[in-house]
Amino acid sequence: MKIGVIGAGAIGMFVSAKLSKSHDVTCYVRRDEQRLIINDEGIRLNDQTYRVASKLFDNLKNEDLLIICLKQTHLDSALKKLSENHPDTPMLFLQNGLSHIDKIKSLSQPILIGTCEHGVLRVSDYEVRHKGEGRIYLSAFEETTKELAKERISPIIDGDDFPVIFKDDLMSMLYEKLVINSVINPITALFQVENGKVLSNSHLKEIAYNLTVEGCEVLNLDENHMWKRVQQVAEHTSSNFSSMVYDIQKGNETEIESMNGYLLNISDQELPNHELIYHLIKAKEIM
Amino acid sequence: MKIGVIGAGAIGMFVSAKLSKSHDVTCYVRRDEQRLIINDEGIRLNDQTYRVASKLFDNLKNEDLLIICLKQTHLDSALKKLSENHPDTPMLFLQNGLSHIDKIKSLSQPILIGTCEHGVLRVSDYEVRHKGEGRIYLSAFEETTKELAKERISPIIDGDDFPVIFKDDLMSMLYEKLVINSVINPITALFQVENGKVLSNSHLKEIAYNLTVEGCEVLNLDENHMWKRVQQVAEHTSSNFSSMVYDIQKGNETEIESMNGYLLNISDQELPNHELIYHLIKAKEIM
Repeated sequence: MKIGVIGAGAIGMFVSAKLSKSHDVTCYVRRDEQRLIINDEGIRLNDQTYRVASKLFDNLKNEDLLIICLKQTHLDSALKKLSENHPDTPMLFLQNGLSHIDKIKSLSQPILIGTCEHGVLRVSDYEVRHKGEGRIYLSAFEETTKELAKERISPIIDGDDFPVIFKDDLMSMLYEKLVINSVINPITALFQVENGKVLSNSHLKEIAYNLTVEGCEVLNLDENHMWKRVQQVAEHTSSNFSSMVYDIQKGNETEIESMNGYLLNISDQELPNHELIYHLIKAKEIM
Repeated sequence: MKIGVIGAGAIGMFVSAKLSKSHDVTCYVRRDEQRLIINDEGIRLNDQTYRVASKLFDNLKNEDLLIICLKQTHLDSALKKLSENHPDTPMLFLQNGLSHIDKIKSLSQPILIGTCEHGVLRVSDYEVRHKGEGRIYLSAFEETTKELAKERISPIIDGDDFPVIFKDDLMSMLYEKLVINSVINPITALFQVENGKVLSNSHLKEIAYNLTVEGCEVLNLDENHMWKRVQQVAEHTSSNFSSMVYDIQKGNETEIESMNGYLLNISDQELPNHELIYHLIKAKEIM
């Protein structure tokens, strides 16, 4: 299958490399510098090289599947170009949070939604390190794309060391990921520590638990189940730094608005823990 | 008056220097190195030198007044020696928080309690910089020491550029200081920023307000009044770093237990903001 991956950050490069074993992958990037080096060197993932083509996003051509690995904060500017793409080409969106859900409704193409739990570290413009085992969960965006997601896409990109799991319930899949991110990302970003510290530092663990409970109240999820899931992801990616750690380091805008900010927006009750942690990250952003 | 100041941290040195203009001050310290340099150089406060004697705390002799400027975390080990001091010598305690209140009940000497709002920066073992105008509030510990506090001590150590103000209500004086400290200290310590950032960073200001409101609920203080007081102190000491900033920097135990920890202990309701900020500082302590 011809697969176009939009965005070559940590997740984009990781997905491109993994899929390149059985598919014809083109990685669409913004900067010519990155395009050149990926074309020259391929993508290096854990000391192995994967041959992947790279093109500028402006030159997006038709593919059998597009996987959109842009961050929420970069999605807006890409939507117009995506909307102009071939009307039959399915698009799989792999974002954190839920802010994209409303935005991509306007697209006429068949839409799939996924979440990615792998811990991946971006080393350079063409190198990534897989630091935490995870899964890609995939769901249909609407009833009309269910067969596409379940029968035609999920089994094709699924692999032994790259499990893609179809989920029937889109929202609960997104909600689970949202809670996990809204706990692990801001805590690690605040202290610039790796994900494992969320469990190994007893005070951070206490905070993580309180954030989990509050998140579950808003989204009507089971606390015990979610607290297990949060711990699971923190363990599996314990030596990895969350994307928010890097955003703070680089002075980029973080995804806090689509995570804790989203929870605060949709909640009709007070969420003091999420509110405080939200303001702490926003405070750090403008320092 | 012969005044002994116990502890030569920022506040101890500042108080010693200020009082040395009209009084015979001896600064009691733990380390011989600091004793020697204060005896040789005096105390330097904002480029002026104040002649102050220094002795080791173990050699505590009788004075007309003792001012105890030790931190809460260093108070326990000094209490025995203090209890053996002359039974008539009044002691003025200048600590943050309220943890000392229970401890010093065992002393038979006349006790006064004070709070210090000056922003003072310790530069070295004998140098301090006065960075924020403030006041020393002074109160009687018990009915029996009221006349002593109001008539005999407060007017004597009061000075034009060193105002000492007698307060009738001990607990409200301590409570006000506790709220101010429990807001400004942990926020500044978390980000290692000066006090002014609590107001100039809009997100930190939001957090400060929420912490103030929660603190007032526990201690039954007026929110509007306290929010004004918090802002006042943050403004007056805007270029100063709180003691907790230095404790974190030096890897010392912070006074979080006697501040936010104290509020959490005495409250019969949830204080999510103070609880989260408490755990954030404890998390930072053990990093």
